[in-house]
Amino acid sequence: MTVRVGFVGVGGIAQGHLRNISSNPDSDLIAVCDVAEDRARRAAGAYGASSYTSFSEMIEKEDLDALYICVPPYAHGEIETLAAENSVAIFVEKPLSADPQTPESISKAINKAGIITSVGYNWRYSDMTDLALQQLKDRPIGLVVGYWMGGLPGVPWWRKKSMSGGQIVEQTTHIFDMARHLAGEVDVVYSAAGLQVMGDVEGLDVEDASAVSLKFANGAPGVIISTCMLSQGYRVMISVFSKDLALEHTQDRLRISVPGETREIKSKVNPYELEDAIFVEAVSKGDDSKIRCPYDEALKTHRLTMAANRSIETGQPVRL
Amino acid sequence: MTVRVGFVGVGGIAQGHLRNISSNPDSDLIAVCDVAEDRARRAAGAYGASSYTSFSEMIEKEDLDALYICVPPYAHGEIETLAAENSVAIFVEKPLSADPQTPESISKAINKAGIITSVGYNWRYSDMTDLALQQLKDRPIGLVVGYWMGGLPGVPWWRKKSMSGGQIVEQTTHIFDMARHLAGEVDVVYSAAGLQVMGDVEGLDVEDASAVSLKFANGAPGVIISTCMLSQGYRVMISVFSKDLALEHTQDRLRISVPGETREIKSKVNPYELEDAIFVEAVSKGDDSKIRCPYDEALKTHRLTMAANRSIETGQPVRL
Amino acid sequence: MTVRVGFVGVGGIAQGHLRNISSNPDSDLIAVCDVAEDRARRAAGAYGASSYTSFSEMIEKEDLDALYICVPPYAHGEIETLAAENSVAIFVEKPLSADPQTPESISKAINKAGIITSVGYNWRYSDMTDLALQQLKDRPIGLVVGYWMGGLPGVPWWRKKSMSGGQIVEQTTHIFDMARHLAGEVDVVYSAAGLQVMGDVEGLDVEDASAVSLKFANGAPGVIISTCMLSQGYRVMISVFSKDLALEHTQDRLRISVPGETREIKSKVNPYELEDAIFVEAVSKGDDSKIRCPYDEALKTHRLTMAANRSIETGQPVRL
Amino acid sequence: MTVRVGFVGVGGIAQGHLRNISSNPDSDLIAVCDVAEDRARRAAGAYGASSYTSFSEMIEKEDLDALYICVPPYAHGEIETLAAENSVAIFVEKPLSADPQTPESISKAINKAGIITSVGYNWRYSDMTDLALQQLKDRPIGLVVGYWMGGLPGVPWWRKKSMSGGQIVEQTTHIFDMARHLAGEVDVVYSAAGLQVMGDVEGLDVEDASAVSLKFANGAPGVIISTCMLSQGYRVMISVFSKDLALEHTQDRLRISVPGETREIKSKVNPYELEDAIFVEAVSKGDDSKIRCPYDEALKTHRLTMAANRSIETGQPVRL
Repeated sequence: MTVRVGFVGVGGIAQGHLRNISSNPDSDLIAVCDVAEDRARRAAGAYGASSYTSFSEMIEKEDLDALYICVPPYAHGEIETLAAENSVAIFVEKPLSADPQTPESISKAINKAGIITSVGYNWRYSDMTDLALQQLKDRPIGLVVGYWMGGLPGVPWWRKKSMSGGQIVEQTTHIFDMARHLAGEVDVVYSAAGLQVMGDVEGLDVEDASAVSLKFANGAPGVIISTCMLSQGYRVMISVFSKDLALEHTQDRLRISVPGETREIKSKVNPYELEDAIFVEAVSKGDDSKIRCPYDEALKTHRLTMAANRSIETGQPVRL
Repeated sequence: MTVRVGFVGVGGIAQGHLRNISSNPDSDLIAVCDVAEDRARRAAGAYGASSYTSFSEMIEKEDLDALYICVPPYAHGEIETLAAENSVAIFVEKPLSADPQTPESISKAINKAGIITSVGYNWRYSDMTDLALQQLKDRPIGLVVGYWMGGLPGVPWWRKKSMSGGQIVEQTTHIFDMARHLAGEVDVVYSAAGLQVMGDVEGLDVEDASAVSLKFANGAPGVIISTCMLSQGYRVMISVFSKDLALEHTQDRLRISVPGETREIKSKVNPYELEDAIFVEAVSKGDDSKIRCPYDEALKTHRLTMAANRSIETGQPVRL
Repeated sequence: MTVRVGFVGVGGIAQGHLRNISSNPDSDLIAVCDVAEDRARRAAGAYGASSYTSFSEMIEKEDLDALYICVPPYAHGEIETLAAENSVAIFVEKPLSADPQTPESISKAINKAGIITSVGYNWRYSDMTDLALQQLKDRPIGLVVGYWMGGLPGVPWWRKKSMSGGQIVEQTTHIFDMARHLAGEVDVVYSAAGLQVMGDVEGLDVEDASAVSLKFANGAPGVIISTCMLSQGYRVMISVFSKDLALEHTQDRLRISVPGETREIKSKVNPYELEDAIFVEAVSKGDDSKIRCPYDEALKTHRLTMAANRSIETGQPVRL
Repeated sequence: MTVRVGFVGVGGIAQGHLRNISSNPDSDLIAVCDVAEDRARRAAGAYGASSYTSFSEMIEKEDLDALYICVPPYAHGEIETLAAENSVAIFVEKPLSADPQTPESISKAINKAGIITSVGYNWRYSDMTDLALQQLKDRPIGLVVGYWMGGLPGVPWWRKKSMSGGQIVEQTTHIFDMARHLAGEVDVVYSAAGLQVMGDVEGLDVEDASAVSLKFANGAPGVIISTCMLSQGYRVMISVFSKDLALEHTQDRLRISVPGETREIKSKVNPYELEDAIFVEAVSKGDDSKIRCPYDEALKTHRLTMAANRSIETGQPVRL
């Protein structure tokens, strides 16, 4: 069956998905929706789809098999629920929300409806992640250190914690997800954070730096460091350490260091294309076994980043 | 006046100081003491000094102006106190002790005696540290990230927490001291730590990895990461971040990154020689104003690493 | 005056120029010509220009002030001559030709007509080149080492020496031009070259590796190394050395190394935009003083690469 | 049998050999000779050997099995000949001489005497060289690029071409030897060289930069670049290229780059120890099959560097 796909939200992050879905022989891009009418029209025109500004109207009028949800963090909730009630499979861009409760409700609706879901934690589809997991097989992990250290995104909503959830939730969530994927669940989280140097940016109330300590269920310690004060860019990476082994994993590279030898391997896979192809295939076949991050798996990552935020507020370690 | 210098402890760390003191025209190396008689004799022979195995005997018989204390962490206490009571200036190698109480008592004895003191936090004497401080002048610090990630030292006492204090206290203390020196005092510390992969090393009970979160009094967050599981070596560095500025400070390099340009500067100074020359000059002139880390300053760093250890034990943040 | 611009050749290299010319308020893109009719039509459509497959027809029918000549090396000659005869200013993409004689004839026609010319040696417009020249001011150059080491371009004509001139003439010419720009004229050139590993590529008869020794008029030695056997990419750079100074210049970076310090600076300028803006301004004002590589300057670089080719053939040093 | 070893020349380069020979259970260091009497006495004292200032006296009085010849380039000749006439095996430090004729005569004497010989091209004993050879097995070499780019050695004789042979002969000879070892014999050599920036150093008449083009017998081109104008150091390396393969070989590292992956391997072998152990074993057993660079093999490298020097003088390519 050819999968009939709609999009809600056709801003920046949607562009790659639009291209992938429109060029996939197993999917038809039939409708797009955006609160910005001209943006909806432009995407609809480019891909020969119908254009909407109301999501409820789109889901009512169009016979969708699957929906891409590419909206800002604060705009999640009703879209997912309505899609679930209409038995439409959903691909949700990260993060799941700017708050802790919304995704819990969505999860209930999804599970009630039994729809196929996938969340855009694209690092999971990288061949570098596969290789990292292979290197770590049968080796106890001793330490995890993650980084999302760079500049300030341009979109205004990112700078408001109520709208984006802050850097940990919106951006570094990829690294938190990788930490779980590579090293397992986290028991306790503690955050040191501040807003020391970006406070004069208009409308900004998110922390500009944080270090989130982790204690994994398996006993290993870790930390994930975030900052948005470095417009020159700095480091986006997760590193994992075992006895005499250092893995440094960026989105498209893996560096493996052991005594006497360092290897740097370059990715051959486009993880965005792969996550979209696997989602379309899953919907087409009614089999989600190849999807690497269904909604409830992403929810665990969301709980972790929300716990990190709670620790910022309380100044206390938070047990998950 | 020529400064008459004795040494207690002439193992590995003492060797550089012995060379510096013996070649300094303003100091005479007159006596050495070590519990290992052959080691004491060898050093005494090499530098034309008297040899002792009992410190109390040495301090009684020799007319010392200054004493280098280069003993393992667990062996501090009486030596410093006795030196203070005899009005002998002391140069103490880090760490001050393996426990929290001993240095507090020593400090009281020192202050009562009014002797000149210096502690071997040699990074403070690096021209790279001077340059880092200059770069940070009038810039609010946003984030501090420190690392002591390498292999396991060979000495057996290092592996026993009761004898060394563990990696944070014995080794990473240099980075904690630099964090204070560059970014100011720390209010709260929280540690995530583990012993996951080095547990099969005989006699080892120190953590093999830790991430110590810091909240500085000025509001900035930070983290200092330690591990001894990487025999290939990995990274010993403190990095400090401000708006569009990344400083990476290793013992002999400083890397300064701003938008559009990265500079890497190499040290021209031997900080060990400088700290010894300044100590001798201070004792000679009776003026300690050039000493960059007197005992009470080092004590603040010791309290910080001890607080990190306490957080490991309690699982709670510790306020300093 | 608004400069009325035509293009002959609208393949890959023309795309950036088309964008720059069409978005420059001082130029109108009025006509394009390509031997591939569909390619001509597509470009004409995209930029609202007239479309031609015959250059002589275009130059007759259109009232052009300036012409971009973006054709393969073997296709130069009549186009430039005809443009000169019609008093049309020309921007010529490198290399000037695949053979030594053609550009000599073109030069005569240009000088007779007195038209404004510019050649696409875009490195000359980089702020990194400006900075390199500034670093070298008043310092004698001791050594020049250049590199164009990478993979095999996809276009078939590149692989035929009669059509492209080979790698030295077609690709490494940028580095030869930079060598002249930074270190002055070359007196003697000697080439060691081979075709050892790419010989099984169909239709390929260009050398797959060469090292061209240079003796500059000022006395300094140098060498420029080319290879197309490394599909992973390797190094495209010119480095210049003076006493205690090493400059490494890539298209968008400059690394300056002196004792104790290394700086790496990143370009802030798009040299393609700048060369196009300066050409349009020159034609508009009738003043070519800002053009950094007029035809006769490029001709000197062409003579140098042709001398390198001649040395391959003869096995002897060639004096320029 | 325990090999009875003498040394002629106990300056800097001899120190490692002295240590290796004195600590090898299969060799006895019995006599040392140096024109500087105090240097001879010091070495003799340190290793319990007899001390000489006249080589002919030493070889007459001592019953030597083997001789280390660690003298400056200009001092070779009679020593080797006398050793050969006395049937003493010789280990000769590179280069063989500062001139082309001397080693030819020595070679004749050696071959007449049938003694065991070894020359100190220590790179040949590196495990990195073994690994490079293994990587190149069954792959045609397309290009060789070598570098000896650094500062000016301190010894006065180095700066006089008549005494050292110049940088190519004295220092870069290691890289020329590696080029032959990895890529085979060279047919033609051509040098571009200059003395542009170090001319004000007192007593210096060697070129301060050169680029020596090579054409290997197998058809591949290459170049070896030397300079002594960079006191900060720069690059000492030989790189070899084949289809989609780049090898970068420094004395203790090998970097292997292929599409998608780069490996950097660190040496585990001390090549100085290994060359000495193999030489002693060869003399002890009367079997030189493990020696990687006997005199006549080194002579081929010497002829190559001498040809490079001749090309500097004549300005013409030199055929070997």
